[in-house]
Amino acid sequence: MTGLLESALADLLGRFHAGQPAALGQAISLVEDERPGFQDFLHEVLGGGPSAARIGFTGPPGAGKSSLLSLVAMNYRAQDEELGVVAVDPTSPYSGGALLGDRIRMSDLATDPGVFIRSMATRGLLGGLATTTKEVLDLMDAFGFDRVLVETVGVGQTELGITAATDTVIVVLVPESGDAIQAMKAGLMEIADIFVVNKADRPGADRLVKDLRQGLHLRAATALESSSAHHDFDPARIINKSGKELNKLAWSPPVLSTVAQSGEGVEDLMDTIKAHRLWLGESGELEERRRVRQRVQIQDVMDRELRRTVWHSDAVLAELDQALDRIKKGKDTAYSVAGDILDRLLR
Amino acid sequence: MTGLLESALADLLGRFHAGQPAALGQAISLVEDERPGFQDFLHEVLGGGPSAARIGFTGPPGAGKSSLLSLVAMNYRAQDEELGVVAVDPTSPYSGGALLGDRIRMSDLATDPGVFIRSMATRGLLGGLATTTKEVLDLMDAFGFDRVLVETVGVGQTELGITAATDTVIVVLVPESGDAIQAMKAGLMEIADIFVVNKADRPGADRLVKDLRQGLHLRAATALESSSAHHDFDPARIINKSGKELNKLAWSPPVLSTVAQSGEGVEDLMDTIKAHRLWLGESGELEERRRVRQRVQIQDVMDRELRRTVWHSDAVLAELDQALDRIKKGKDTAYSVAGDILDRLLR
Repeated sequence: MTGLLESALADLLGRFHAGQPAALGQAISLVEDERPGFQDFLHEVLGGGPSAARIGFTGPPGAGKSSLLSLVAMNYRAQDEELGVVAVDPTSPYSGGALLGDRIRMSDLATDPGVFIRSMATRGLLGGLATTTKEVLDLMDAFGFDRVLVETVGVGQTELGITAATDTVIVVLVPESGDAIQAMKAGLMEIADIFVVNKADRPGADRLVKDLRQGLHLRAATALESSSAHHDFDPARIINKSGKELNKLAWSPPVLSTVAQSGEGVEDLMDTIKAHRLWLGESGELEERRRVRQRVQIQDVMDRELRRTVWHSDAVLAELDQALDRIKKGKDTAYSVAGDILDRLLR
Repeated sequence: MTGLLESALADLLGRFHAGQPAALGQAISLVEDERPGFQDFLHEVLGGGPSAARIGFTGPPGAGKSSLLSLVAMNYRAQDEELGVVAVDPTSPYSGGALLGDRIRMSDLATDPGVFIRSMATRGLLGGLATTTKEVLDLMDAFGFDRVLVETVGVGQTELGITAATDTVIVVLVPESGDAIQAMKAGLMEIADIFVVNKADRPGADRLVKDLRQGLHLRAATALESSSAHHDFDPARIINKSGKELNKLAWSPPVLSTVAQSGEGVEDLMDTIKAHRLWLGESGELEERRRVRQRVQIQDVMDRELRRTVWHSDAVLAELDQALDRIKKGKDTAYSVAGDILDRLLR
């Protein structure tokens, strides 16, 4: 790490620190395309550490994540907060295409100068999406937004990994998206800080709310057995608690009901996000989560650098072609070839 | 690569080659859990190269992939073929849970001794799923099945990567799963060898079929501009073509309609899979795809070994803890730490 940036990047860094939105957009492209010096740029920018409140929205396609995110965003805008929004969804309404019907709200957001929206195209089979997306969150954080909101489809591993890089994870479900057992199997119970059953005016919504609560109670009871320090609490009352009391409390994910279409239940959601933020800070959990995130990021960066080093080496690429011929003849396998290359590469 | 296996693994290898289903199950667990010697075992087993026909089913949740896969599997069973089935879906009906209603078909498969079903649990945030799943496909192939069928939810990157490891990719959509534009954005146009619009008796099915065909034609026309060697053809007639003619033909993904519930359209699907297989062989595309797959596998294995080497090193783990403290104090970032570790690690 030289600490010296090329003059073009030094110029970008200056405009980034000056708070120019165009510089943020250029910085994101720099990182997305892994252009020369992008690691140095990130190193320069991220020294200050995270400060924005990061809120993730995840759940199956069609659950209304975008609508809910927009409503939440508009609430923060009414409080004059500045927002970064990242959408990781190949079929997201943000990523181009017509904004029609109830999606009109998002086009309001898109033209609001206090909101910076970036859509991460998954571009088919491209790898490394999770690492890059987390770096985009970091860039938005470093740029100085009060909050960074993220939307992922939340079905695949990559998407779950991105969601884990936020402070507050909101899992959005609808009666049509399947039952509570499916949510448990998909690993959503482990990552959810807040459950939202959206389209709560539809048949089956009450049942889903009830089942989710039951599933969460079962899970909490199991956790209680292995840890006597666990105490349940009512998130709605947390705002009135003192820090000392909060320290002793574990967070039990509440299950809320909303109708994004009419705005019903969104006020409750805002209160619950606020309560969770308070708990994160007072309990020491925020610091812990950020430390875990840093550890994962070091691993992500090292893995990527290793890949870049290895697969950009002419010697390795030449060896690879010969190896494929040997594999075809049955003289080698991917395992012997990988072992040989590694032996020579590592000290 | 020593070529010498521990006696327990040598015993497993013997039973694997003798065709004992229990040995296949144990071999898969060995690989899934990355137990000592799993790479040597894979090296011993995979020397023969791939020979099974690999068919992937992907698409959004609720599209009826499992039902369709089951119908296709039963057709092959009626021809006395032996099958391996891999399901990569956290909410798959294979992975435990009740088999009810139209899912009863799958319980027939599960009790058929000519079918070996393995469900890959995504287990929340666990990484490396794609690499391991592809190795499970390889194991099933090496075990000697005529065909290996794979089902993935196909929304995330990981799932798309697994699908790319099959010879014939069937993308299953339903009218409810969104329009053709969403399919294009999700990268499904790039990976589909065959499109199936399932639940074709529901409203919107004809429209989806029409839009998909239009999208494919647009794509083919664009490809044609950049390559004059491109020729469209009718897959239904391919079976009667000679090898020489096939060589000159590109595959244009057909769009089929099915109603898995009633079995309607499944015969067409069987014919189309057969035609695609024929084309793969005659055009040289199968050999090309297998070579690309080998290249990806070498990279996968190397990436995993690098991670295992680096993150299991006591020196690196100790350094990591100190680094996190320095990052918290603003003296370092993930980028400078990763760079330092790599500099020392690589020759």
